[in-house]
Amino acid sequence: MRVLHHYQLSASARFIRLVLAERGLVFLPKLEIPWERNESFLSLNPAGDVPVLVTEDGLVVSSGTVIAEYIEETEPTSTTDLLWGDAQARAEIRRLVHWFEFKFSREVGSPLISERVLKRFSGSGEISSSVIRTALSNLQVHMDYIDWLSEQGNWLAGKKLSLADLAAAAHLSVLDFLGDVDWCRHPEAKTWYAKMKSRPSFRDLLGDQVVGLVPPQYYSDLDF
Amino acid sequence: MRVLHHYQLSASARFIRLVLAERGLVFLPKLEIPWERNESFLSLNPAGDVPVLVTEDGLVVSSGTVIAEYIEETEPTSTTDLLWGDAQARAEIRRLVHWFEFKFSREVGSPLISERVLKRFSGSGEISSSVIRTALSNLQVHMDYIDWLSEQGNWLAGKKLSLADLAAAAHLSVLDFLGDVDWCRHPEAKTWYAKMKSRPSFRDLLGDQVVGLVPPQYYSDLDF
Repeated sequence: MRVLHHYQLSASARFIRLVLAERGLVFLPKLEIPWERNESFLSLNPAGDVPVLVTEDGLVVSSGTVIAEYIEETEPTSTTDLLWGDAQARAEIRRLVHWFEFKFSREVGSPLISERVLKRFSGSGEISSSVIRTALSNLQVHMDYIDWLSEQGNWLAGKKLSLADLAAAAHLSVLDFLGDVDWCRHPEAKTWYAKMKSRPSFRDLLGDQVVGLVPPQYYSDLDF
Repeated sequence: MRVLHHYQLSASARFIRLVLAERGLVFLPKLEIPWERNESFLSLNPAGDVPVLVTEDGLVVSSGTVIAEYIEETEPTSTTDLLWGDAQARAEIRRLVHWFEFKFSREVGSPLISERVLKRFSGSGEISSSVIRTALSNLQVHMDYIDWLSEQGNWLAGKKLSLADLAAAAHLSVLDFLGDVDWCRHPEAKTWYAKMKSRPSFRDLLGDQVVGLVPPQYYSDLDF
C-alpha cells in the first residue's frame, strides 16, 4: 500500500491527506517528528520535510505541490479531478495552492508552528512573542483574502472544489488546532470552512492528536 | 505581445525569462522594483511579487512554478519540452524546481538579497552580518548537492535539459551576480553552470544591469 510520511501539524502533509481522501486513495500514514533527525527518512527526501509519498511501486514523491501534481497526473478521473478546467482555470487553482503553500506558510503558518510547537517540544531557542504577534497580524490579512475569495463563488477557485480549497483548508486547520483563528471576524471564510470541515475527507484531520497539545473544543465541532 | 513583470535580481523571474527564451517565446519585460509599492502591479498580483506573466489575451499568471506549468501546458512542442517524460521523471523535475524555488530561496537566496540589496536600497532596517553568514554557510550545502546532481547525468534531472536546470541556474545566477559563489570549491557544479551560461537563453541574464551594483567581472564571462 502507498505510504504517506507526515506530521500531524504539517499543513502541507494535511493538504495531501485531504487530496488522497477526496480521491478515495487509501494510504498508510507514517509519522515523522520534525525535530528528530531520522536518517532513513532523509535518504528518502534530502530536503528533510514532510509530506513524502511512497507509491506501491516504490516511487518516492516529495513536497505538497509536487505530490498533488503527481496524483492529478496518475489518477485521472473526470468526477474527482481537483485540478480542472482550461489552462486559465488551472493557473488560478495553482496560484491559490502556491499562495497557501508558500505565502501563507511563510507569513503565518511556519513562524507560528516554529514558535509554538517546534521550539517548545525540541527545546531549541527562546519563544519570540514578537514573531507570534507579527504572524497573527498577517493572519488577519490572509483571512480577509479568504473572506473575499469565498464571496466570489462556491469554492475558492470557482465553481467546483479544487486543490485550492484543500490547500487553504489544510493550512487553516493547523491554526485552528492551535486556537488562532478568530472565526467571528470572518463570517464568509467561516461558512466556506464549515463546508470543508463537514466533508468526509476532513474527518481524519479532525481526529488528530498531538501529545502535549490540546486543541480548542470547537476544533472538531462541525457547528463551531 | 506577452509582458513579463520582473526584477533583475528576482531568481524566480530569471527562471521564467530562461523558460521563455528556451522556448523562443518573445516577451516585453516590465521592471517592478520590489520596495516600491506599485498599486497597479498589486491589482495584477495581490501577492505583490514577480514574476507575473500577462499573455496576449490579457490572462494574468503569477509566480514562477505556476507560470512554468502554464507555459508547458499551453505551448506543447516535442523538441523543447522542459517538463518531459513519464510521471516519475516529471515528479523528479518538479521536485528539483521546488527545491530551488523554495528551499534554496528560503535558506540562501532570499536572506542574501534581503540583506545585501533590499535593505540597502530601500533603507529599511540594519544589515545583519549573522543572517549573511548563515545564508553563505547554507549555500555550501546546496552547492555540494548541485555537485552531486551534476555528477549523476548530463543535466540535473537526467538525460535532457529541463525546468530543473533553468530553476537552479536562475537562482545561482543571482548569487553569482553578487559574487557569492566560490566556483573553485565546486568543479562539477561549475562545469554544469558553464554549460548553462553558454546557452543563448542565458545571454539576456548576463547583460542585466542594476543601478548601484557591479557584478564581478567573471559574471558575464563564459570562461570563468
